[in-house]
Amino acid sequence: MTTLASPVSGDAITALGAQFATVRRQSLALCETLTPEDMMVQSLPEGSPAKWHLAHTTWFFETFILREFVSGYQPLHPDFLWLFNSYYNGVSDQPEKTLRAIFSRPAFVDILAYRRHVEDAIAFMLDHEPAQEALTRLVLGLHHEQQHQELLLTDIKHALWSNPLRPIYREGVLSTHAQAAPLVWHEYEGGLREVGFEGDEFCFDNELPRHAVYLHPFRIASRAVTCTEYLEFIEDGGYHRSELWLSAGWDAVREHGWQAPLYWQREGSAWQVFTLHGPADFGTLRDTPVCHISHFEADAYARWRGLRLPTEFEWEVAASPVPTHGNLLEGGRLHPSVALPPASGNANRHPLQLYGDVWEWTASAYLGYPGYRPVPGALGEYNGKFMSGQMVLRGGSCVTPATHIRATYRNFFSPATRWQFSGVRLAQDVS
Amino acid sequence: MTTLASPVSGDAITALGAQFATVRRQSLALCETLTPEDMMVQSLPEGSPAKWHLAHTTWFFETFILREFVSGYQPLHPDFLWLFNSYYNGVSDQPEKTLRAIFSRPAFVDILAYRRHVEDAIAFMLDHEPAQEALTRLVLGLHHEQQHQELLLTDIKHALWSNPLRPIYREGVLSTHAQAAPLVWHEYEGGLREVGFEGDEFCFDNELPRHAVYLHPFRIASRAVTCTEYLEFIEDGGYHRSELWLSAGWDAVREHGWQAPLYWQREGSAWQVFTLHGPADFGTLRDTPVCHISHFEADAYARWRGLRLPTEFEWEVAASPVPTHGNLLEGGRLHPSVALPPASGNANRHPLQLYGDVWEWTASAYLGYPGYRPVPGALGEYNGKFMSGQMVLRGGSCVTPATHIRATYRNFFSPATRWQFSGVRLAQDVS
Amino acid sequence: MTTLASPVSGDAITALGAQFATVRRQSLALCETLTPEDMMVQSLPEGSPAKWHLAHTTWFFETFILREFVSGYQPLHPDFLWLFNSYYNGVSDQPEKTLRAIFSRPAFVDILAYRRHVEDAIAFMLDHEPAQEALTRLVLGLHHEQQHQELLLTDIKHALWSNPLRPIYREGVLSTHAQAAPLVWHEYEGGLREVGFEGDEFCFDNELPRHAVYLHPFRIASRAVTCTEYLEFIEDGGYHRSELWLSAGWDAVREHGWQAPLYWQREGSAWQVFTLHGPADFGTLRDTPVCHISHFEADAYARWRGLRLPTEFEWEVAASPVPTHGNLLEGGRLHPSVALPPASGNANRHPLQLYGDVWEWTASAYLGYPGYRPVPGALGEYNGKFMSGQMVLRGGSCVTPATHIRATYRNFFSPATRWQFSGVRLAQDVS
Amino acid sequence: MTTLASPVSGDAITALGAQFATVRRQSLALCETLTPEDMMVQSLPEGSPAKWHLAHTTWFFETFILREFVSGYQPLHPDFLWLFNSYYNGVSDQPEKTLRAIFSRPAFVDILAYRRHVEDAIAFMLDHEPAQEALTRLVLGLHHEQQHQELLLTDIKHALWSNPLRPIYREGVLSTHAQAAPLVWHEYEGGLREVGFEGDEFCFDNELPRHAVYLHPFRIASRAVTCTEYLEFIEDGGYHRSELWLSAGWDAVREHGWQAPLYWQREGSAWQVFTLHGPADFGTLRDTPVCHISHFEADAYARWRGLRLPTEFEWEVAASPVPTHGNLLEGGRLHPSVALPPASGNANRHPLQLYGDVWEWTASAYLGYPGYRPVPGALGEYNGKFMSGQMVLRGGSCVTPATHIRATYRNFFSPATRWQFSGVRLAQDVS
Repeated sequence: MTTLASPVSGDAITALGAQFATVRRQSLALCETLTPEDMMVQSLPEGSPAKWHLAHTTWFFETFILREFVSGYQPLHPDFLWLFNSYYNGVSDQPEKTLRAIFSRPAFVDILAYRRHVEDAIAFMLDHEPAQEALTRLVLGLHHEQQHQELLLTDIKHALWSNPLRPIYREGVLSTHAQAAPLVWHEYEGGLREVGFEGDEFCFDNELPRHAVYLHPFRIASRAVTCTEYLEFIEDGGYHRSELWLSAGWDAVREHGWQAPLYWQREGSAWQVFTLHGPADFGTLRDTPVCHISHFEADAYARWRGLRLPTEFEWEVAASPVPTHGNLLEGGRLHPSVALPPASGNANRHPLQLYGDVWEWTASAYLGYPGYRPVPGALGEYNGKFMSGQMVLRGGSCVTPATHIRATYRNFFSPATRWQFSGVRLAQDVS
Repeated sequence: MTTLASPVSGDAITALGAQFATVRRQSLALCETLTPEDMMVQSLPEGSPAKWHLAHTTWFFETFILREFVSGYQPLHPDFLWLFNSYYNGVSDQPEKTLRAIFSRPAFVDILAYRRHVEDAIAFMLDHEPAQEALTRLVLGLHHEQQHQELLLTDIKHALWSNPLRPIYREGVLSTHAQAAPLVWHEYEGGLREVGFEGDEFCFDNELPRHAVYLHPFRIASRAVTCTEYLEFIEDGGYHRSELWLSAGWDAVREHGWQAPLYWQREGSAWQVFTLHGPADFGTLRDTPVCHISHFEADAYARWRGLRLPTEFEWEVAASPVPTHGNLLEGGRLHPSVALPPASGNANRHPLQLYGDVWEWTASAYLGYPGYRPVPGALGEYNGKFMSGQMVLRGGSCVTPATHIRATYRNFFSPATRWQFSGVRLAQDVS
Repeated sequence: MTTLASPVSGDAITALGAQFATVRRQSLALCETLTPEDMMVQSLPEGSPAKWHLAHTTWFFETFILREFVSGYQPLHPDFLWLFNSYYNGVSDQPEKTLRAIFSRPAFVDILAYRRHVEDAIAFMLDHEPAQEALTRLVLGLHHEQQHQELLLTDIKHALWSNPLRPIYREGVLSTHAQAAPLVWHEYEGGLREVGFEGDEFCFDNELPRHAVYLHPFRIASRAVTCTEYLEFIEDGGYHRSELWLSAGWDAVREHGWQAPLYWQREGSAWQVFTLHGPADFGTLRDTPVCHISHFEADAYARWRGLRLPTEFEWEVAASPVPTHGNLLEGGRLHPSVALPPASGNANRHPLQLYGDVWEWTASAYLGYPGYRPVPGALGEYNGKFMSGQMVLRGGSCVTPATHIRATYRNFFSPATRWQFSGVRLAQDVS
Repeated sequence: MTTLASPVSGDAITALGAQFATVRRQSLALCETLTPEDMMVQSLPEGSPAKWHLAHTTWFFETFILREFVSGYQPLHPDFLWLFNSYYNGVSDQPEKTLRAIFSRPAFVDILAYRRHVEDAIAFMLDHEPAQEALTRLVLGLHHEQQHQELLLTDIKHALWSNPLRPIYREGVLSTHAQAAPLVWHEYEGGLREVGFEGDEFCFDNELPRHAVYLHPFRIASRAVTCTEYLEFIEDGGYHRSELWLSAGWDAVREHGWQAPLYWQREGSAWQVFTLHGPADFGTLRDTPVCHISHFEADAYARWRGLRLPTEFEWEVAASPVPTHGNLLEGGRLHPSVALPPASGNANRHPLQLYGDVWEWTASAYLGYPGYRPVPGALGEYNGKFMSGQMVLRGGSCVTPATHIRATYRNFFSPATRWQFSGVRLAQDVS
């Protein structure tokens, strides 16, 4: 993580305090339509209840800032230290992940009190000449909370879909029938390129160090694959042709009985897609990016087209010149309706839909950059210890907080993961 | 089930209506100290959330009475028919049992409305010349709900215990340090005996037909095994001596790492026992019946003593002369504190603690009596289809509703079950 | 087990020695058509390789007789004591059952040497005033080996069937197209009956003590259910109608995808049945007893017919007057062709096919008789520790050694077991 | 795979025929000390019986050469086409891998006949103007068979070790007590380097295309980590310190209870190591490379030393100037005793022990090179479809055929794999 320049001015601290308040408020805002009962649900082993997300993000500030940098800080509850620890072995043991759904106590109101308790202590700290390192961690904690905002929406979508009554997260208008811009190819020369984060702002440790890579000439698609395009793959028997799949992918297809992306459901001869606004007719979404596919499906789709996924560095080279904030709403997420729009705009200069539509699976395994160093101590477990068996995704999705997206950001999941808002953009060699 | 004598008088219908209201009210009373979040928890695969119990017992009246006998009845929600079906294949498909914990919707308040909706319709039916069969099923439905009252407490105990904060279900005074009455033996002659239910009142179909069995002379203990007595077994290495165990029991010991009854926890050199009133020192409970042991543990304990479990018929012969209501509180459960008292009273004539302390594992497999006939239709699935791989328990426990206990009542669970309030009474041959 | 009358005469010892030689020879004769590779196969977790059966039966004599009663006996190999222990915790630890398939060493020839080593030592012992208890155990060991002869055939059938090439165990002529005798009912009065073994000859401890039971009047079928009759159940949708099945049985149907008995395979519109003589057309076997069904299937079939299974005591009462040896071949098995004939003969006086066709599932759980006492020490683990979760079968099958069958013999398996030669005979109440 | 230059001369065909005969003979030579029973054993799910290896390598020639290029070729057995198919979906279905252990038929002698049948047909083909593509595939088939020679030894080591009697594969002298050469560091400049296979000889498709990569300056150790060095990690609590492990690695440690490399066993206070020559005292092996460790262990060891694994390209750059055949025995494997020697020789110019000691885990995920194209058709399944979730190993081991090793060879396994002869060489950044 980038260290804050020292000393931090009083104005900067004030700004940071305001940002803290904003991010914290946004987490609660996401839960406005949820009941405490909704916030108990854990519908898949890799997911967590919404209440847990609210508690764990608070725990992060308490554990790594208040307990270390605020002398005399009184934790609200002695057991919370390990109760809301996710995976930091360096801090304490943790409850098994599947136990998160049985924490009816502390109640939602207790978690709200916990949040206020910690927020008050942070505010106090900011008023009393905070240590540099405490501020550095505060920024990290905000990005941590933003990651959990996305996970909260991801998990609640699955929770509501798992309920046979199929409740709606939030009323909203789904995409109109606008057509996606036609797919064109952007070509890039080969050669040495610099990748990785550069600058004074925040980044995660796994975006560093910035370093040179040698790229071969490549082309990358001007937009993500649409639902309509993906449907052609399905209708061509894509889920039944082993030659299109990685071996582990084919195993997954058969084990889970995959026939389509997650949340697609056949109703008679038509497809219906479950969204945070409820079930939608396929036609409504046809030109929007296909979403909730695994790396295996993205890879098989590309192979079926005779193409391939971009590497994470190809993606970064294509995305780096494109500003993330061009289409951002103030202070919020890219698509407040949590619905995906079709690709639109002018693709003459740069690819479209790079940020904030769907996470885009890449061909790259999640590994450390040359010279990568995790931060010391328990915080070093944040990113580094997951560098095994996962694939990199880039670009952020419609549920990623907008201020949390940048070209060098590396998301990572196991290749069989489907409950994330993950899609695919194609690439090809220049031969 | 016994059929009601026809025609049923108006007075009898009025009394039945009052009983219905009482039982329904008791279910809610059990939840007074619980939050909607508590009522979401499903902490073991064979358990259910409290909210589900409230819904399913309502579903029972709706499905088997209102839908069949009340013309024009409007169900509150069309999906509830299968959503709250437990295992009746003859009615509809059912959600997988593990899904019960993700039903955040319908919310608790919706279930309360569902309960009122069905209660109103039952009241209406009772005012309008109800069919005999509808009344018969109403009685069955009340006993069904009472069974679920017990399960609700059983499940919530496990849910609270699974929570690392170990919340308390209800404040209450645990047993005083009164000593258990000394164990004496009651001897019974062999010969032909009649077992099974007899009379005009309610019983389940599996208590019928009343029939003759030939018993060999036997002795049965005057009270249940106490915690202190069971502790001797533990301290003598009972959980480490394979020769004391059935083969499947020994497998269970090793697979689950059993070292003591469920809810016993070693704190340094002492034992602590988790109860519905919170954790208790072993000393407080030492003379109370050992509880939450599996059939395998009951059987191993008996073998260690050189004794055995009674058969269900030996138990019934010993219990039949003893009235269940001698120590009953009006309209409630035996031990409103949900704490177990030590055996007390005069064991000169009959064994003590037969009813309402702990369910007592017997040596009998749960099978149909000679000439057993399940009721026709989907209700026939109530008891009959479980007659495989389960053992009979007798007598009711401290969380069994008092009006729901009788000498011929056959409870049944898999021999590895521990989360029920199950204990053990010893028997021996007369040689 | 019955204790031999003491003292045993020299002649009796000579006869016992001859019997020992015969039984041991028979075990090897069963393997004549098998290669050492065949004898390595373990195709299901509950089965064992043929080589292991040959070794374990030898281990039994070594462990319980030679090591205890022959001073100066030198074991062939120190590790065999635990290597070939099946489940006797009182003797030693045991290798995990699934490891039996990796014992390429000791080689088959080494096991033959082990057999001779132990046989020579037994012969030596018989020549030198053997202890009474040693002789008692020798008789037990012979019956133990006969049980494993049956298991060896059962396991090898499954092993060959699991091989996609479907090799044949032994050339042989399957049943002709003779018709089964028509099914008639034999009726028995109710009342007190004596059951359990009586006499001076060998029996297992679980057949004792002989004791009184009270039976209600019943009828029992004159023969086993045939393949043709069972096919009617299949064609009537028996495997798709949940109401016909015990709950655990219905779970098994869905989990394993059962559609027919084990070894039945649909070829186009016809059924083929795999036998120890290779695959057979259904027509060849149509009137023979249906075989390789689980207790769940037997029970569902009976329910579909509106009938039930007999209890083990009803079966014993019907079978006791019928001699087992009426249709026995000298010194061998009932059906040397290991093929089942249709029921034939005169059913006027007694039911047919009681012995040596198929093991008949009963409605009785496998539990100890009143006053049951396992033999002391490790040998007490032989039968007693399995009295949980299993159902009783009676009568012996076409692969049971003929001298090993009697009316009181209690076989037992889990209700989902299908690889045994198990079938069904119907019963009904007299109402 | 490199295509053979066309046309191939008669001499070249003759040489190829001789090479074919040699490789085929070597496979059988590896089995000289094994019995047909040994060749049945499959002691872990990812392993195969020796007999299966002999059959499958034959199947490869039959399927991809004889069936396609030799008109009139008569397969020995119609079922072998799918019976011995490993994973080529483009050819046929395959038996489940776990079924390989139940193929007692075809017998070992039948497999020998199958081998001769196919060898005769290949010889015939070579005499009759073989097609270029057939010859290309013949070369591939030889390398395929060499891969299985290594797997055969790997699997049989595990099979013998799983047997409680711990049989010895082959008598042989283990390493003397020679000391390992001291570890020194070789430093390499950063910059653009070419990696991947170049030349006319055989390589696998995954070694192509040769391409540029940009490397940062690095250092690589002059030899592999020794047993003694690894023991220090164990004794420092390496297996108990979560901070040293990747998250998935820590899960593996706890799930499998890893305490040391596979085949290490504590005997009192000393360690014993199981080898193909039987159990060896730790002292005998102390200076030899640590072997049978997973990627997770290699990675944790490196982290504990404050170092890291080399990437596969760093390894290749270090190894490329070093000839593989410097220390090769003619026509055989590097270490015919299948025992590992300590590092020896002069490390002044190049690292030692690069080839033929232990496979060296790298920090690189197994992915396709830029522009990678699998060969068309079913043979394209050989390598490409496994490019997910696996890590690259380099260098070959003491059981890799010597003619089968080269600097660009990419082996790959899941990071939890331990039964391969896999070890670790350290690297570090130049900062």
